[in-house]
Amino acid sequence: MNSNKLVYIGSIVSIAIVLFIGGLLIGRFAIPRSSNTIDTYNLSIVNQRTEEERKIIWNNLKQQFLNLVNAQEIEKNLYNFTRHTHLAGTDDDRNEAESIATKWREYGLDVTIHPYDVLLSYPNPIQPNIISIRDQNNNSIFQSNGNELMFNEDDKSLPFNNIVRPFLAYTPNGTVQSRKLFYINYCTTDDFQFIETIIDKNDLNGSIIICRFGKIFRGNKIGNAEKYGIIGVILYSDPIDFARNSTRSNSTYPNSIYMPDMGQQRGSALILSGDPLTKHYPAKDYMYRVPIDNNPWLPKIVAQQIGYKEAREILIRMTGISVLSNWTGGLDQVNYVYGGLLLDDLSIQISSYNTLQIRRIHHVIGTITGHIEPDRYVLIGAHFDAWNFGAIDDGSGIAVNHELVRVFRTLVRSNWKPRRSLMFCAWTAEEYGIVGSMEFVEEYAKILGSRVVSYLNMDVAVTGSELMIMEMSPLLYDFAIKISKQVKAPYVNETIYEQWIRINNGNHNVGEKFFTMGLSAISDFAGFNQIVGSSNIAMTYLNKSDLKNAGAYPLYHTQYETFRLVKKFVDPEFQAHQAIARVIGLSALTLTDIDLLPYNPARYHQALVSLLNLTKSIAPKSINFTSLQNAIDQFKIVADQFNQRIQTTLDKSNPIQLRIVNDQLMQLERAFQNPLGSSIEQADLKHTIYAPSRTNRYNARGFPSITDAIEDHNITNIQQQISIVTYFIHSAISVLHQPNKIQATS
Amino acid sequence: MNSNKLVYIGSIVSIAIVLFIGGLLIGRFAIPRSSNTIDTYNLSIVNQRTEEERKIIWNNLKQQFLNLVNAQEIEKNLYNFTRHTHLAGTDDDRNEAESIATKWREYGLDVTIHPYDVLLSYPNPIQPNIISIRDQNNNSIFQSNGNELMFNEDDKSLPFNNIVRPFLAYTPNGTVQSRKLFYINYCTTDDFQFIETIIDKNDLNGSIIICRFGKIFRGNKIGNAEKYGIIGVILYSDPIDFARNSTRSNSTYPNSIYMPDMGQQRGSALILSGDPLTKHYPAKDYMYRVPIDNNPWLPKIVAQQIGYKEAREILIRMTGISVLSNWTGGLDQVNYVYGGLLLDDLSIQISSYNTLQIRRIHHVIGTITGHIEPDRYVLIGAHFDAWNFGAIDDGSGIAVNHELVRVFRTLVRSNWKPRRSLMFCAWTAEEYGIVGSMEFVEEYAKILGSRVVSYLNMDVAVTGSELMIMEMSPLLYDFAIKISKQVKAPYVNETIYEQWIRINNGNHNVGEKFFTMGLSAISDFAGFNQIVGSSNIAMTYLNKSDLKNAGAYPLYHTQYETFRLVKKFVDPEFQAHQAIARVIGLSALTLTDIDLLPYNPARYHQALVSLLNLTKSIAPKSINFTSLQNAIDQFKIVADQFNQRIQTTLDKSNPIQLRIVNDQLMQLERAFQNPLGSSIEQADLKHTIYAPSRTNRYNARGFPSITDAIEDHNITNIQQQISIVTYFIHSAISVLHQPNKIQATS
Repeated sequence: MNSNKLVYIGSIVSIAIVLFIGGLLIGRFAIPRSSNTIDTYNLSIVNQRTEEERKIIWNNLKQQFLNLVNAQEIEKNLYNFTRHTHLAGTDDDRNEAESIATKWREYGLDVTIHPYDVLLSYPNPIQPNIISIRDQNNNSIFQSNGNELMFNEDDKSLPFNNIVRPFLAYTPNGTVQSRKLFYINYCTTDDFQFIETIIDKNDLNGSIIICRFGKIFRGNKIGNAEKYGIIGVILYSDPIDFARNSTRSNSTYPNSIYMPDMGQQRGSALILSGDPLTKHYPAKDYMYRVPIDNNPWLPKIVAQQIGYKEAREILIRMTGISVLSNWTGGLDQVNYVYGGLLLDDLSIQISSYNTLQIRRIHHVIGTITGHIEPDRYVLIGAHFDAWNFGAIDDGSGIAVNHELVRVFRTLVRSNWKPRRSLMFCAWTAEEYGIVGSMEFVEEYAKILGSRVVSYLNMDVAVTGSELMIMEMSPLLYDFAIKISKQVKAPYVNETIYEQWIRINNGNHNVGEKFFTMGLSAISDFAGFNQIVGSSNIAMTYLNKSDLKNAGAYPLYHTQYETFRLVKKFVDPEFQAHQAIARVIGLSALTLTDIDLLPYNPARYHQALVSLLNLTKSIAPKSINFTSLQNAIDQFKIVADQFNQRIQTTLDKSNPIQLRIVNDQLMQLERAFQNPLGSSIEQADLKHTIYAPSRTNRYNARGFPSITDAIEDHNITNIQQQISIVTYFIHSAISVLHQPNKIQATS
Repeated sequence: MNSNKLVYIGSIVSIAIVLFIGGLLIGRFAIPRSSNTIDTYNLSIVNQRTEEERKIIWNNLKQQFLNLVNAQEIEKNLYNFTRHTHLAGTDDDRNEAESIATKWREYGLDVTIHPYDVLLSYPNPIQPNIISIRDQNNNSIFQSNGNELMFNEDDKSLPFNNIVRPFLAYTPNGTVQSRKLFYINYCTTDDFQFIETIIDKNDLNGSIIICRFGKIFRGNKIGNAEKYGIIGVILYSDPIDFARNSTRSNSTYPNSIYMPDMGQQRGSALILSGDPLTKHYPAKDYMYRVPIDNNPWLPKIVAQQIGYKEAREILIRMTGISVLSNWTGGLDQVNYVYGGLLLDDLSIQISSYNTLQIRRIHHVIGTITGHIEPDRYVLIGAHFDAWNFGAIDDGSGIAVNHELVRVFRTLVRSNWKPRRSLMFCAWTAEEYGIVGSMEFVEEYAKILGSRVVSYLNMDVAVTGSELMIMEMSPLLYDFAIKISKQVKAPYVNETIYEQWIRINNGNHNVGEKFFTMGLSAISDFAGFNQIVGSSNIAMTYLNKSDLKNAGAYPLYHTQYETFRLVKKFVDPEFQAHQAIARVIGLSALTLTDIDLLPYNPARYHQALVSLLNLTKSIAPKSINFTSLQNAIDQFKIVADQFNQRIQTTLDKSNPIQLRIVNDQLMQLERAFQNPLGSSIEQADLKHTIYAPSRTNRYNARGFPSITDAIEDHNITNIQQQISIVTYFIHSAISVLHQPNKIQATS
């Protein structure tokens, strides 16, 4: 509390300083002469006469911002957020949207609310989904509970009556039963290809399978199963991934961050981003909706998760040969086998009661309008829907988002006038498969496509405090490094950059280790990467041990994502949250106010080179990559020339010259977009350099259309896709050329 | 000659005046104060301090331009151009590209040359394509000549040895023969539907048909025939359309503009714009080419044209009932019948020797770089390929283009510094199906998409001198009217606007009569409309009688398109050419130099309303148009608000504010573009308001995807397409909203 006060007093002082220096400089230099100069935007850094004066203002502004970011405020935000459950399309969801809108209006943002009517999926409120084992007379000898357990430590004041039962969104209802049960590891494409070498693939037809959460997106697991005629899928969180140390109660929640034996990960099984009834278009009243039957994006087979205690009851009743070690899980006294018929003529049954419903959702957008380029948008986003209390997913992002609104509004009140518009986005229906933000992106595709500079995403912003990792467009690589050098790491006396160096044993090539180039379809940046074409960034503070995770943090999407969990185990002083707020905020401050966008095209060349090498390594030897190679080489030359021109000939004081160069930088990422998408089926995946993998939507795949063709062993299509990617790299080259004429190509 | 000199002296005087006044104003007002203003662009109208001073400069500049445009120069250009034949992909073609590049470099343009390797089609140089009538013993009792005839009046110095024989580009080679011959009028969809009511459609299977040129694109005629299992198509120019007055030799070429009895229209049968082997992508060395076999865009059946003298020989040997009057042609002593078996067991044979070849073509682009916004492009284009001498198609456009280069370079030398970049385009391979310019548009789609303001097309710019007609985006409606009031009509003492009023009997609603909203795929604007998304315009000076034409002017695509034809019959003093040059040039001058783009969004509302009414009138009664109607109503409100804001709050002296509004105006047309195109087969037709009709590429069809669905009687798809068009109108609305935030929709 005290320290909080101190920070606050400090910040007021520095506001004063900024104002004083600002006033000083305006008085000294900006006696307006005629309205056709832009001197009227007092504090905007572009209008200061000399480099030094600009630096003074700018550094004060940054320091000012960093000082204002307050850990206790974030903690307060998270506490308030986690008082409720947040399932999209419910009253909880609508109430949260309203309270966010109210809060942001109080802060002084220009708030708009954006409703969509999207197809969502819900479990039956009375009848839980049940998995049972049945004897020859079809009597149940074991049946799953269908719920997670509450613990004494859980805060009784929370609305546990609202808890969303474990279910897999969009999987159909119905009851399936089989005497055949197989264990298929993580149900990846590789796992299925491998089991075909062990058993006759036709045996899978009509069977039920069990596999563990992790490695890939759960929807792809079920999608893979469909191809084999499997009738039901059981998913569970194996201790080896989710209760790493021990399954004993004192080693799991509520006594640690690890999964208790009845813990269950909820989640969507939709293999699409956005409403499956209005693909490519916004879910508005005027829009035609395709029929639900035979909708290609909805899972076709029954699927349900269970706790690992229950999984054990099933696994011990399986037959077949023992699995190889890399398929072995961590359950005590379980002999993991590939499966076949169940023991003693037993059969296994899944009964699901899920329903599909079109429900209204509401996004909240709060804007601080830019003073020089109001039509250039920098967006910060987090989603407020959650499977239950969502303390981590995405309370962390929402809590930080609120704090950033508070801080930026404080700057505005201290007379900061940003160059560009800054927009705060609170999304919903993210958990269902980026359904919500994708509808927004689809509705405003044209203006976002021409106006968005960058989208900064905060989803699962904090699962630990030891290390920050980032996903981004290669254009932002240098920018991310620069920001990391200006923000203190949590709980240690070093910057985030210094922390990276230390963890990387002094090796300065931190990007290779901690950055992922390109973004997947795992969160709300999906639409901005694939449809808008802006250059985007996302980040998470985590613990080193999390890097070994098969997927998410152990309690991901459980009802145990509570404020208590975060406060006790994840980030007690909210310093990691504060660090994320500073990184995102400082990035937004810079992208919003700096005259020349801090994108480095040369970094895209490096990304292209490594993608090319990777792709060559998996391609048949007969494939010819020469044209792609040449385009990438040419890209480097033109990118270097571009950077050279900015250094030498750009007159930053000429507003139009500046706008022209910034337009080129904004259009570079967009130049890689194929308006037709990577295929007729995947026409919504338009980025030809990075897109979510067909086999795992959690991963961004490089040269996706080429890689898919390689997987399909389609030599003609590989060569065709190489020529198409080559074309889009040439398009990016044409964007970087001097725009005063159209450069001819040989 | 004298008058020419006078004009020239006059123009030098006015240059002096411009310079004097310019200098005066600069001395008086523009004492530069710091480099972060844009005062350094002396003559650019945006920098003059007061409205009046700007007007003075601007009006002088316009007058200056109009005075410089010189009819004799255009005549000289046309004479030189028509010394050669100009078939795309030949030496003639390459030489013309080089001579244009040389000429433009001499004038001082920054010239680039853009090569592509495209699939073209050629007749056999030795063996003409022949149509013959054969008796029971298969002896030929009549056979076509395979050539047009030369006349004594034709200029013997021309390279007649280079004449391209009549053929239909891209139709396959081979010999087909049938005893069944049918006459199907113009071979429109309606004609085929009608003949199904007269004969059993199965009788058409295996038959050969004959039909007349006109009404629709010849490629659609052949495409329609393919659907009926017809094996060969004979096309001819019926006198009723092409030798309207009389077929006597003193009433036709060389004694008039009308078709002689052996005259034949050449042309392409490709139902696609661009190289059919690289659809969507540029025909560069790195690009994958689809196989020629089963290429869906190439015609599948043999087809050949003949003179109407030869057509008569065929028609008189047909059987069957007489046709209705609207199917009757103008051949003497011919009883037009629907056909069936030929007389006396005769059969008809078509032998074609066409070949497909990938050949290199070269476009020439000459640029005058803009001084304030070099990255904003205004393009003027004409094509220099022709079936032979191409005095009208497109010598008229090329001759005017050269003159405009001369005039604009003169302005530059008199120190004119345009705000935006002005690009002169000389295209080739237009005659083959917009093959050339489409490859250019595809290669540079990204930068053209973000930078092109307008494309101004000149193709068949002059076929007469009585009346100017225009095709355009609705945004340019008011602009076109304004320009027409400033340019003198040829051979009369009135402006083009006054001429319209007179011809329109005093009715001032001239647009309705003489403007076509939206552009088809008939010329090089196709790629700019459908892919680039700029707001474009095209125009032709013609005679009133041409308005009655079934298609083109009588000697269209014949070897009689000579300089003599133009000089003697079309535009003896080249005043119509001069008028076109002034209209195009004044439009380009304005679009290049004016600060605020002269587009009027409200005009698009009117266009949408009339399209809606038209579409409703042909749609089933059950169809619900409410959402589309509402979107169009909303568009009007927002368009009016936009115009209002420009009137009241726009600070034109703020360069960024100006750029922002101009960006909105540029993006308006682009907002109507569906990146996926109107269907999977027609993914290259992206404009959802206007696109070339499926049934006639000569026509721009309104709401094409809706209209197609109506033709297909697919109720579900009609409703779906209505919702998609509604979406793109909402996209246009979002572009016009104030850009300082994202306006929410209910």
